[in-house]
Amino acid sequence: MSELRAIPVLGIGEVKPGDALAQVLLAAIERQGLQLIEGDILVVTHKIVSKAEGRLVALDSIKPTAAMRRWGRKYRRDPRVIALALAESRRIVRKRHGVLITETRHGRKGLICAQSGVDVSNVDGGSSAALLPLAPDASAARLHRDILKEAGIYLPVIITDSFGRPWREGLTEVAIGCAGMSVFRDARGHRDPYGYKLQVTREAVADELAAMAGLACGKLSRIPACVIRGFDYKRARGRGVDLIRDPEHDLFR
Amino acid sequence: MSELRAIPVLGIGEVKPGDALAQVLLAAIERQGLQLIEGDILVVTHKIVSKAEGRLVALDSIKPTAAMRRWGRKYRRDPRVIALALAESRRIVRKRHGVLITETRHGRKGLICAQSGVDVSNVDGGSSAALLPLAPDASAARLHRDILKEAGIYLPVIITDSFGRPWREGLTEVAIGCAGMSVFRDARGHRDPYGYKLQVTREAVADELAAMAGLACGKLSRIPACVIRGFDYKRARGRGVDLIRDPEHDLFR
Repeated sequence: MSELRAIPVLGIGEVKPGDALAQVLLAAIERQGLQLIEGDILVVTHKIVSKAEGRLVALDSIKPTAAMRRWGRKYRRDPRVIALALAESRRIVRKRHGVLITETRHGRKGLICAQSGVDVSNVDGGSSAALLPLAPDASAARLHRDILKEAGIYLPVIITDSFGRPWREGLTEVAIGCAGMSVFRDARGHRDPYGYKLQVTREAVADELAAMAGLACGKLSRIPACVIRGFDYKRARGRGVDLIRDPEHDLFR
Repeated sequence: MSELRAIPVLGIGEVKPGDALAQVLLAAIERQGLQLIEGDILVVTHKIVSKAEGRLVALDSIKPTAAMRRWGRKYRRDPRVIALALAESRRIVRKRHGVLITETRHGRKGLICAQSGVDVSNVDGGSSAALLPLAPDASAARLHRDILKEAGIYLPVIITDSFGRPWREGLTEVAIGCAGMSVFRDARGHRDPYGYKLQVTREAVADELAAMAGLACGKLSRIPACVIRGFDYKRARGRGVDLIRDPEHDLFR
C-alpha cells in the first residue's frame, strides 16, 4: 500500500457569485505547477461553492423576531444568524444552552448540523452569512463535469463543511456533496487476513477524505481546496446524501 | 502551507500479548527504510495495542444468558460478543434493531460506541474477541515515552478505533487515546482573513488524523499503523478523553 497525500491548492483568491468554479480551481492548480493525475480527488469547502452560487445573505436585510433577539442576547449569538438558520431548516433537532441543531431542507433527508450550516466566518468580515449550497450533490456533479470538460481529467469531487458531533468535542470536516466516487469503502462479506468474515465494516471514506482535507487546509488560512492523491477510490455515482442515515434506521432522530 | 502525507507502516506482523509495541513498530519502520523526522505523528489502531496488552478473550469461555442468545438469534449477532459488550459497559445508550450502543467503563467519561468496542475482526479468525485497551490514554503515553527512549524522537501517538455516528452512515476512524499533542486545533478568538473573529471553531484534529490514517491503512489489509508527516501539531498533554463531551454539556446522552 502506498502513501496518501493531501496537496493544498494555493492562490485561489476571492470567489464571487457567478464565477465558474472549475476554471478558477484549474487556473490555481496550473499556476501552482501541480499536474493532476488519474486517481486524484478534489476536495473543496462548501464556502467557495456557496459564494460562486451566490448563496450569500446580507445580515442587515434580516429582521429577527423578538424571541430570536432574546435568545441571541442570552447566549451571545447573532439573532440574524438564528433567523437564517431557522429559515433554512426543516425541523429543530435540539435547542438548548445556546446550541441550535437543525435538519436542513435539503431533499428527503436533510443534513443535521448546527444552525443549518449558516456561517459568517470566511465570508466578508461579518456583513454577510453564507448558506449551504441549495443542492450540494448537484454542485459537486457540476464541478466534476466541468473539470472533465475543461481539463479532460476524471476527478471525483467532494464538497465539505465542518460539523459537530454528539458525544464528542470539536468539529470535523465532513462530506456534504460528492460526485464521481463511492462515498463508502465496503468490506462487508470480505474476509480479514485471519479468515474472519467482516460484518459491519462499511467505511465512510468521503467523510474521512473531508477530514484529511480539513487538516491540510486549516481554518485560519484561506485555503478552500486540496487535491488528495494515492487513495484507491471506487468509481461510482456516490452522493453526499448517501451518508445521511435514513430516518427509519436512525436511533438518534 | 505544505503537503500532508500518511505513510503506512508495513510488515509489522502478528502482535502477541506481552510484546513491546514500541520495539515492534520501530523495527518495522526501520526495515521499511522510513526515516522518522521531527514533526511526524504515529497513528496506531487499538487492535495491536489490545493484543500487546493481552486484552483478548476466548469466545468459548463466555456464557451468554438466555436473553442474550434470543437477541443474538433475532438479529444474527454473536451472543457471546453481546455478553462481553455489556460486561465492558457502564450503561446502554441505545438498544434497538440489533444495534447495541453503550458507554464504556473508561474513566469518568466513557466512550460511546457500538458494543463497547468489542470486536472479533482482525484478531484470530473468530475464536477470540479483542476488548478496547483498559486505559487508551495511558497506552498512548507509554508508547510515546518508549519511542522517545528507544529512538530518541518525540513522536505524538494516537490510538484509534472505528466508530459509527448518529445521523450518518458508515464508520470513521476516531482517536480513543492520545499522547504528546493537543487533540484540538483551536481557532477561537482568532480572526479569519476577512477580519471576522472566529467563535466556535475548535477542530478535533486527533479525530481527523485518525480518519486520515484509516484511509491510508484500509480494513482488509493488515496495516495497523501509519506515520503522518507534515501536520503542524501543537505539543501538549492532549488526551483522547478530552474529545469526549462532558455529560452536562451533551444534548444527546
